[in-house]
Amino acid sequence: MTDLRVLTFGEIETLAAKALTASDVSTENASSVARSIAAAERDGQAIVGLSYLPVYCDHAACGKVDGHARPRLEQLSPVALRVDAGTGFAHPAIALGLPALVEAARQNGIAALAVGNSYACGSLGYFVEELAEQGIIALMVANASPSIAPFGGKTPFFGTNPLAFGVPREGCEPLVIDQSSSVVARVAVIDAYNRGVPLPNGWAIDANGVPTNDAAAAMEGSLLPIGGYKGFGLALMVDILAAGLARSHWSFEASSFGDCEGGPPRTGQMIVALDPKLFGGGDFPARLEVMLGAALETPSVRLPGDRRLEARRKHRDGIAVSAAAVETVEQYAREGSPERRR
Amino acid sequence: MTDLRVLTFGEIETLAAKALTASDVSTENASSVARSIAAAERDGQAIVGLSYLPVYCDHAACGKVDGHARPRLEQLSPVALRVDAGTGFAHPAIALGLPALVEAARQNGIAALAVGNSYACGSLGYFVEELAEQGIIALMVANASPSIAPFGGKTPFFGTNPLAFGVPREGCEPLVIDQSSSVVARVAVIDAYNRGVPLPNGWAIDANGVPTNDAAAAMEGSLLPIGGYKGFGLALMVDILAAGLARSHWSFEASSFGDCEGGPPRTGQMIVALDPKLFGGGDFPARLEVMLGAALETPSVRLPGDRRLEARRKHRDGIAVSAAAVETVEQYAREGSPERRR
Repeated sequence: MTDLRVLTFGEIETLAAKALTASDVSTENASSVARSIAAAERDGQAIVGLSYLPVYCDHAACGKVDGHARPRLEQLSPVALRVDAGTGFAHPAIALGLPALVEAARQNGIAALAVGNSYACGSLGYFVEELAEQGIIALMVANASPSIAPFGGKTPFFGTNPLAFGVPREGCEPLVIDQSSSVVARVAVIDAYNRGVPLPNGWAIDANGVPTNDAAAAMEGSLLPIGGYKGFGLALMVDILAAGLARSHWSFEASSFGDCEGGPPRTGQMIVALDPKLFGGGDFPARLEVMLGAALETPSVRLPGDRRLEARRKHRDGIAVSAAAVETVEQYAREGSPERRR
Repeated sequence: MTDLRVLTFGEIETLAAKALTASDVSTENASSVARSIAAAERDGQAIVGLSYLPVYCDHAACGKVDGHARPRLEQLSPVALRVDAGTGFAHPAIALGLPALVEAARQNGIAALAVGNSYACGSLGYFVEELAEQGIIALMVANASPSIAPFGGKTPFFGTNPLAFGVPREGCEPLVIDQSSSVVARVAVIDAYNRGVPLPNGWAIDANGVPTNDAAAAMEGSLLPIGGYKGFGLALMVDILAAGLARSHWSFEASSFGDCEGGPPRTGQMIVALDPKLFGGGDFPARLEVMLGAALETPSVRLPGDRRLEARRKHRDGIAVSAAAVETVEQYAREGSPERRR
């Protein structure tokens, strides 16, 4: 059993921000990243929450991400936006572009934001949900350092290259789909490795291309894409949209998200925002509920994001987090990251 | 062995157009659909070529699709376009919107076209390739009559809901990704049924939700989505974009693409068009070749669409088509569809 401690959203946010600022991150950037860490814990996504935060701190301390970067927004056209993250965190770079993106989509029905020269953005669902809460349908993609082999190959070439989709709903939380192009996200393999448990079949291959249940061998090898060549197709599409259109490193060029080597990964994110009412008409929200209601007539069917919303409800009066993760982050908050700038 | 006949692209086009006009389709609409049939044969996609054409003819004759529909284009904003197909074929409706879509994307970097109240559009790759040939990156989705159960269910609810992605390349054919949200497209199951061969594992479940290798049982049951809940997520996203934003029937409301019952399916298509140079910069084409070249350094790796381009090259001096399919279509060209308007 993991020892748990119950914290509020604000307490997690404050603690995370302290650990980041102690590790050479500006107050503004730290606050943007810290909020996403608290949201991950609230939504039951602990593996990208406090226990992952030390990686962010180490990377700021060693210079893999520039904690003091000031992202710059450029309007390429009335509906085309670009943010250069300046090798800083993705969170403040995306946050800088979102208001203009929402405005452009409301005015014109569709708009896009490309965020380049940035770092891992954590959960994409976090951002598309924010857009959906403002009445906007959002399709978001991000590339990452290599962990998926191309179909027919055995060496990692694409990142897990996730795709997320958020849709506003009337009278309840937005619908949020958020999934990687691999069978599982890389953090799930790292988590299995840390816990010393074997991987299920079908998750990964080793460095020789042979299917493996060994997390360490999988980390040396490659994650498998969903549906074979179809997941490869998705990962390729995401790389072109997220890196190609954001003038960033392709996945295969990006330094690892997992260590301090190789300088900033310079990966990218891309968001396409759509106004559902302009395209779908005023009855779009009601029609969406008809469709989702019909899908849920079968009691065993669950919508994407259900578990996340369940965790959020469970955590309404306090968020149970790993006591060990809190202790580590408290140490970071006191002393900063042990990593030093290279 | 299938008996083959060698025809030119133009001969297939003319024959297909004759079969359509003899089955109550206007000359203009017939010519638009016929071109896509010839392209499918040229690209080695015979199962959506001449052998599939009789379904189009039957559906025009019985009124499932209005062969005389005149699609109407509406400009919702400088970058948002909508075509109402008027329960006619998707091909002429999409063709009507493409020039304005290309122009809007070139002017503004991004634009979208929603096509509603339409019918099956055949291969999505056909349309995104046309856009890519004009220098535009295109993401296209389409919904369809139900054949995939939601994750956790066993009754078809979503169509195979394909997604296609086309990217212009310098000095060679565009990169085209075109894949359904199911492990295989429904036409592949119909093809196995017609040829009397068993289905591979993992393609489908029967009406009780039990995995099956029997094509007939699969047609009564449900296709499986790629990667379990992830394919479900993709199919749901496609339904919202293609049907929700095009003011069309959700997959679960659509009449079958496979018979003459239930009136027009009124499904939808959606295309998002992006200008790669505005977002990605002038060196986007060169950088894309660097990435694709690096992927192809492993000789066993093949890019999506490779087999299609190989077939196209093989067919440069004549397209080998099934003699039986040609005979059937010739009969349709002489006598029209045996189906009668209901």
